[in-house]
Amino acid sequence: MTPQRVSLITLGVADLERAKTFYGALGWEPTQSADGVAFYQMLGAALALYSAEDMALELGRAGQESGSGSIALAQNFRTEAEVDTAFERAIAAGARALKPPQKAFWGGYSGYYADPDGHVWELAMNPFWPLAEDGSLTLP
Amino acid sequence: MTPQRVSLITLGVADLERAKTFYGALGWEPTQSADGVAFYQMLGAALALYSAEDMALELGRAGQESGSGSIALAQNFRTEAEVDTAFERAIAAGARALKPPQKAFWGGYSGYYADPDGHVWELAMNPFWPLAEDGSLTLP
Repeated sequence: MTPQRVSLITLGVADLERAKTFYGALGWEPTQSADGVAFYQMLGAALALYSAEDMALELGRAGQESGSGSIALAQNFRTEAEVDTAFERAIAAGARALKPPQKAFWGGYSGYYADPDGHVWELAMNPFWPLAEDGSLTLP
Repeated sequence: MTPQRVSLITLGVADLERAKTFYGALGWEPTQSADGVAFYQMLGAALALYSAEDMALELGRAGQESGSGSIALAQNFRTEAEVDTAFERAIAAGARALKPPQKAFWGGYSGYYADPDGHVWELAMNPFWPLAEDGSLTLP
């Protein structure tokens, strides 16, 4: 059963410093800021600013025009098996696989699909970001 | 001070019935389904499926290619004055106004801007969707 939640919204950005400056001027303060990415705690979920170029590479869409895929909506799960099951269910429902679930360079496990309108969803298990009992995400 | 929250994620879709069927097959159940739009309760926030064409009209982007603007991230506020203040702050920070805050056809008050990468944010006051103390949204 797929939970009705978005754990992480990732906005692809052309210039991370420019984007951080803009969101900073709005009053957003990053909880974590690593090389090439910034994470912001929201209510039980997180927002990320991430290089649009790296995002396209990770999704296997390099060289394509940006568009719907410049935002990804992520659902996080507790286990790799849960990611696999949810991914299979999405494909069975008519989603287009962009990247089958696999070990990710950041130490977790994730896959990407596009819904019938091309909206990109990531299904992920992040061992460094345990989910609360209710499925909500609090950045460590 | 802008709250670090997304109250509503709206996905623009070409065919609402097709989209509802897809999300239904994933196990998502709409909390509200009105003419041309479906709302899904998430953890303290909501997801909407909405006609991409109507969405483009509402944003004043009709006839433009879909793209980043086919997803909108909404922050809801308690008063029109809070919407105005947050909108002014975004413009001062370098956002591009798409639609200044105004009375909306659905009975609330809302404005749209694009961040420096073109990601669309809606700032809204919805009298029918009161926010909880912590700013989270539960669909009525």
